[in-house]
Amino acid sequence: VVIVGAGFGGLWAARALRNAPADVTLIDRNNYHTFFPLLYQVAAAELEPEDIACPVRSILRHARNLRFVMAEVQGLDLAARLVRTDQGEHTYDYLIIATGSRPLFFGVPGAAEHALRLRSLEEGVALRNHILFCFERASVERDDGQRQRLLNFAIVGGGPTGVEFAGALAELVHGPLRKDFRGLDVRQVSIVLVEAAESLLSVLAPRLRAYAVRRLQRMGVQVRLGVAVERIGPEGVRLKDGELLPAATVVWTAGVGGDAARFLGDSELAPASRGSAPAPGPAARRDGRVPVQPTLQLAGRPEIYVIGDCAYLEHEGKPLPMVAPAAIQQGVAAARNIRRQLAGQEPLPFRYHDPGTLAVIGRNAAAAHVFGRDFTGYPAWLLWLAIHLARLIGFRNRIMALTSWAWDYLFLERVVRLILPRATPPG
Amino acid sequence: VVIVGAGFGGLWAARALRNAPADVTLIDRNNYHTFFPLLYQVAAAELEPEDIACPVRSILRHARNLRFVMAEVQGLDLAARLVRTDQGEHTYDYLIIATGSRPLFFGVPGAAEHALRLRSLEEGVALRNHILFCFERASVERDDGQRQRLLNFAIVGGGPTGVEFAGALAELVHGPLRKDFRGLDVRQVSIVLVEAAESLLSVLAPRLRAYAVRRLQRMGVQVRLGVAVERIGPEGVRLKDGELLPAATVVWTAGVGGDAARFLGDSELAPASRGSAPAPGPAARRDGRVPVQPTLQLAGRPEIYVIGDCAYLEHEGKPLPMVAPAAIQQGVAAARNIRRQLAGQEPLPFRYHDPGTLAVIGRNAAAAHVFGRDFTGYPAWLLWLAIHLARLIGFRNRIMALTSWAWDYLFLERVVRLILPRATPPG
Repeated sequence: VVIVGAGFGGLWAARALRNAPADVTLIDRNNYHTFFPLLYQVAAAELEPEDIACPVRSILRHARNLRFVMAEVQGLDLAARLVRTDQGEHTYDYLIIATGSRPLFFGVPGAAEHALRLRSLEEGVALRNHILFCFERASVERDDGQRQRLLNFAIVGGGPTGVEFAGALAELVHGPLRKDFRGLDVRQVSIVLVEAAESLLSVLAPRLRAYAVRRLQRMGVQVRLGVAVERIGPEGVRLKDGELLPAATVVWTAGVGGDAARFLGDSELAPASRGSAPAPGPAARRDGRVPVQPTLQLAGRPEIYVIGDCAYLEHEGKPLPMVAPAAIQQGVAAARNIRRQLAGQEPLPFRYHDPGTLAVIGRNAAAAHVFGRDFTGYPAWLLWLAIHLARLIGFRNRIMALTSWAWDYLFLERVVRLILPRATPPG
Repeated sequence: VVIVGAGFGGLWAARALRNAPADVTLIDRNNYHTFFPLLYQVAAAELEPEDIACPVRSILRHARNLRFVMAEVQGLDLAARLVRTDQGEHTYDYLIIATGSRPLFFGVPGAAEHALRLRSLEEGVALRNHILFCFERASVERDDGQRQRLLNFAIVGGGPTGVEFAGALAELVHGPLRKDFRGLDVRQVSIVLVEAAESLLSVLAPRLRAYAVRRLQRMGVQVRLGVAVERIGPEGVRLKDGELLPAATVVWTAGVGGDAARFLGDSELAPASRGSAPAPGPAARRDGRVPVQPTLQLAGRPEIYVIGDCAYLEHEGKPLPMVAPAAIQQGVAAARNIRRQLAGQEPLPFRYHDPGTLAVIGRNAAAAHVFGRDFTGYPAWLLWLAIHLARLIGFRNRIMALTSWAWDYLFLERVVRLILPRATPPG
């Protein structure tokens, strides 16, 4: 069994295949697993990158039938059943594709080139460096317009990532950075959250959405709803209504698509669709997610499973959300189905158990829909804290993250403010 | 007062000028102070980079007359008394130069291009990434010679940095990496420490030197004494006696020189040496250290102090060592002398108090000369632990480093093994 990707889906699939009667190879381009739900805290200098990452080899150390290979996957040969990587080829009997997601820019010009992203540990660190660099530059900038541009932050996208990052950034600015940069007037700092839809956090109930907007506004974040982005350039964000938001920092959290099309495009799947009975249709949708059978298998390719963000499956008439719980559940389900296939049994369809939705907005504030109920404020924040701490993989991560948070909470102090490695100067 | 460099010398000078009747500007290219004595532990994946670094602004937050500027110094104009940086010019009445050290390669061809270094936080992280990358590559390499080259590590220089890093690397390899890479035979790993002189740790007594060699050998490190390096290339280290040590990783810890000559060369000082009575001689020695008066002032330039690794001053007939305690003491002394000059008094000559020498070799093992006595083994290691913990700046650094160490000590486990940011593949 070869598993491509050591995110939530791939890692849980590997864990569920421990001691299965099969040799399992897990391939990832990084040697660590990233706890994505807390990535925005790295970008806001609240957690260190090491707090939310764990070496894959440590996690899998006790599984004798598992092997980890750090390599970049370059392509698949479906006929020969092999995975081509920059570190050689790996043949498979069963393949699990769990390559996660990548940003979607909806054709907005300049977004790919000029906006910072928040989809990997490297991007999180780069964004943190960039923010701190902007403050350093602003503190010695004599031109008023330039300084204002350095202190303007635009966040595009009002989903959980955008909301959580906007809140964390506001707290960073009005807490530690205010103390560190006494020469700057933090009231000059402007944080704008731009969302094309009419509300933030569209998956939550209207009451929770309104709470999120109010709470962000109280923290000094300008929330612009129903405004689409025309293009992004080095000078800032041009809105569809013609307005220019000048900003040295533009963060794109608006669109997320599956990252399977890169090596699972139509051409690659062509042999399969010619041969087998139910034509699989287009291999990947426009958003890069690959439609799968209810068993998570590719149509006509019973030996290939696609799980997590890069899989497209509907649940109660709606596409499954691209969140960690869905990936984890699919990883376990795919592993169980492969065990069934190895034992000569039929794979079972996947059933999704929705654990609810949580978005943290700041200190003591969150909006949540869990256990069938809505929560806001402090209770929601405690819930969020408990769930995320419990889920962080690895005991060390748990204590380290807890230490950082406790410190932060008690002393209103961000402890992680190194610009490392050296960032390129903004603008 | 302008201080260039936020290392031990510059930072302690800034702290000693707190509340002095002067505006103090501290300039550094990074926004953090690095605790250099523990840098080798970052390279050996024992500490996280954040554990040994602290944002300069946090350290100086409570000093109202201090200002920090993150900038790269490009040159001095001694006549106009200004410092040119990439972020504008800063005029000074008094200047403290504390720019630290840089590696010296003694003209060994290829050393600058092919050897990894251990003089900055970035270099420490790069070295850690490189080591882990070599193990990842070796685990999928099929060619025996290539794999052996990936598992060979050569360390050039038997001073404290070389000895400490060799010991830490041996512990990393035979502890956590052995568990993580079950497919590799760690007995294939070779760590060679090459020193041109006839002994390691030449500042210590012969008994302690012999102890260090024995101890390293017991940990599996090959110690090659009295062997000079001819050149360094991508294939490894060529020794003067003709032997080639093939190694994908060569670490250069052999030579350290002052880093003042870059902008304090002869040409820059020429106006001063023409004008004033005692000719200052060559501005910088061949090793990049600048000779200073006993008061730490430049000859003929009473407004300029040079301190720390980039200053050259003799103590009891020998040059002052390039160590943190000397830099700290000089920083405080320079600040005191500037305060005296501001008050119309004469600067006082600097007197060095030697705190002793300590080198840690591994778990429970160190060699030390402190309080006039020699220590080895466990007592020396405890001493080292206590002194370094006490000296780490900032409470957080203290608890975080302690947590990492306690963990490591109890479970023989390195917790920091992420390859981040992505390293370029070795060889």
